[in-house]
Amino acid sequence: MLNIPALEKLVHELSRLPGIGPKTAQRLAYYILRAKGDYSDRLVDALTRVKAEVHTCPRCFNYTDADLCKFCTDPHRIDNLLCVVEEPADISRIEASGAFRGRYHVLQGSLSPLEGVGPQDLRIKELMERIDAGLRGEGTSIKEVILALDADLEGDTTVLYLTKQMQGKAVTLTRIAHGVPIGGDIDFIDDRTMGRALENRVEL
Amino acid sequence: MLNIPALEKLVHELSRLPGIGPKTAQRLAYYILRAKGDYSDRLVDALTRVKAEVHTCPRCFNYTDADLCKFCTDPHRIDNLLCVVEEPADISRIEASGAFRGRYHVLQGSLSPLEGVGPQDLRIKELMERIDAGLRGEGTSIKEVILALDADLEGDTTVLYLTKQMQGKAVTLTRIAHGVPIGGDIDFIDDRTMGRALENRVEL
Repeated sequence: MLNIPALEKLVHELSRLPGIGPKTAQRLAYYILRAKGDYSDRLVDALTRVKAEVHTCPRCFNYTDADLCKFCTDPHRIDNLLCVVEEPADISRIEASGAFRGRYHVLQGSLSPLEGVGPQDLRIKELMERIDAGLRGEGTSIKEVILALDADLEGDTTVLYLTKQMQGKAVTLTRIAHGVPIGGDIDFIDDRTMGRALENRVEL
Repeated sequence: MLNIPALEKLVHELSRLPGIGPKTAQRLAYYILRAKGDYSDRLVDALTRVKAEVHTCPRCFNYTDADLCKFCTDPHRIDNLLCVVEEPADISRIEASGAFRGRYHVLQGSLSPLEGVGPQDLRIKELMERIDAGLRGEGTSIKEVILALDADLEGDTTVLYLTKQMQGKAVTLTRIAHGVPIGGDIDFIDDRTMGRALENRVEL
């Protein structure tokens, strides 16, 4: 770098972003320096506003700028259907499908013994409290919990853990289907996906 | 997106960075939200410091946080050798080679009639003034100007334009060599590079 501490600090901070290496970070820093108008100011403003306004919803742990998020407050959504996701970003994907009109619960991650992420690091206690409150008749009664977790080792571990936690509770626990993607070519499907697709075949 | 204006604004601003599409911008915004510690604050601080401290060197138009950049003030560099580059980032590449110990001049771009970039948009006038001042005996006398511009259409156009501007001046004008890269496999070299490598062959 060019021996300019301020510029080196910016490159260092940018290179901490996911998928941004030191070379890309340097390119971004140069772009920010060269950008016409008040781009740098607007970026600072956007970062400051997000920090000041956006927080997690105390009920479902999605992001929101209000007391509760829009999915928790929407009166037109089905109360007794709860979809559990890993990250707030997953909600957009599920909403885009248009196939779910219930409420959400964001775990804020998935169990990973390898990376030292245990149940206490996720919003599992809060999920159980939501379900138990409904069973006690104190909160909204939940009939079905749909697990929409990633189809990887961490997702599978989390599904196993939650299944154990839910045992004995009068709540239906389901997991979204895994199989051949729509438009997917059978030729190119990996073994594990094909195995799951055969195992979970649907009667016509 | 999740109907959170502050978050949408941050995604919009991030997606203006080069190589960052809307999906990546959303991922970066979520990372910034989730990041532990005061990452967002440190990013804001870095952006603010760069804006406050970093400016272009009034002599060579490289970035600096001092009155003149470190290449213009370094007493150990050769005064009468001037290397012309397009962007400040190019200087790092040339410095890393260790093969050049003269001064620099940053054009801040290259001529592109297609994108409406003309000579008045670049630091060409300032380059000519530096050379002319030396010829008049007022500034540092420059013996050789090395053009280290990109080997693309814009770079070639700029080389042609500068060659015309320098005609009749008692200064040697050179361009860095283009040819097969060191470690490059002859099999995989494109036609134009091979053409240039043959044309500019060096006697052994």
